[in-house]
Amino acid sequence: MRVLGIDPGLTRCGLGVVDGNVGRALTMVAVDTVRTPPDLPLAQRLLAIEGAVAAWVERFEPDAVAIERVFSQHNVRTVMGTAQASGVALVVAARHEVPVALHTPSEVKAAVTGNGRADKSQVAAMVTRLLRLTEAPRPADAADALALAICHIWRGGAQSRLEAAVLRHTITQPASRGVAR
Amino acid sequence: MRVLGIDPGLTRCGLGVVDGNVGRALTMVAVDTVRTPPDLPLAQRLLAIEGAVAAWVERFEPDAVAIERVFSQHNVRTVMGTAQASGVALVVAARHEVPVALHTPSEVKAAVTGNGRADKSQVAAMVTRLLRLTEAPRPADAADALALAICHIWRGGAQSRLEAAVLRHTITQPASRGVAR
Repeated sequence: MRVLGIDPGLTRCGLGVVDGNVGRALTMVAVDTVRTPPDLPLAQRLLAIEGAVAAWVERFEPDAVAIERVFSQHNVRTVMGTAQASGVALVVAARHEVPVALHTPSEVKAAVTGNGRADKSQVAAMVTRLLRLTEAPRPADAADALALAICHIWRGGAQSRLEAAVLRHTITQPASRGVAR
Repeated sequence: MRVLGIDPGLTRCGLGVVDGNVGRALTMVAVDTVRTPPDLPLAQRLLAIEGAVAAWVERFEPDAVAIERVFSQHNVRTVMGTAQASGVALVVAARHEVPVALHTPSEVKAAVTGNGRADKSQVAAMVTRLLRLTEAPRPADAADALALAICHIWRGGAQSRLEAAVLRHTITQPASRGVAR
């Protein structure tokens, strides 16, 4: 299966595509970091992130999208922008009918390094080894996006199969309720 | 000017359209609440919200969109979904090239009631009076969306004129940096 991992963020949004299956070797297909300038209005920054994610989904046609689950306990200064970027990525996946799963940072660290509290350098080192790269992907957001994709492949895509099943049985646009006058 | 106010939320997203100008009477054009079921996958809920906001922007052609600014100090249980919904609304506005402004809850309360710490019932009562409605819009999210639109009109749309100017001088899709292999 092919997974697009997304480490959401306004200033840097990591994107990484990995091919692989449980118990098989993993292959990196692409990695990149989308940057949006802090002096651009927020709506424009989110639109740029949407455009980049949509372009990757269309270009690499992943079987699933794996996005980091954002918690409000994280860095308070940046968490709102991160949550907004993740919302935009979720909508792009849904619009392209690609199953999407959220993984917590500890799930990703545990999957890739065996330790849910591993630091960024350990994650980057394991990603480099698992994908047989000659050097660690930089910046950390790029390595984190690849780690998300690996985590999703190794967790067997169970969550995404579940969501795909729900998707097939759900009306995609639930009607709004209320009165427009 | 015509303003679409949006009170973002996953379970209930308030939408309200108001026509008016500083020092003139205000007119309600439309009000509604978009609801998405909690058992739907997050990506599908956000897609439904995107669809509803896009439909309103296309139908009512607002001169500006006013969205409540979300803070991480708010209700921790729901704040992530609220931030994701606001991110989706921001992208819809940007995609339609409608200037967008964020107003804090206290700014909205102060604009509508004169008191930045007014409670929900005071806001609803003032919205009802200012728009000469026969009864208060329900639920509170609908009244809050109208209050956001009124706040934006009364603040003179200065922020949205600024953003429109920035928009005109900005490349809409900043190039991503990095290497796709």
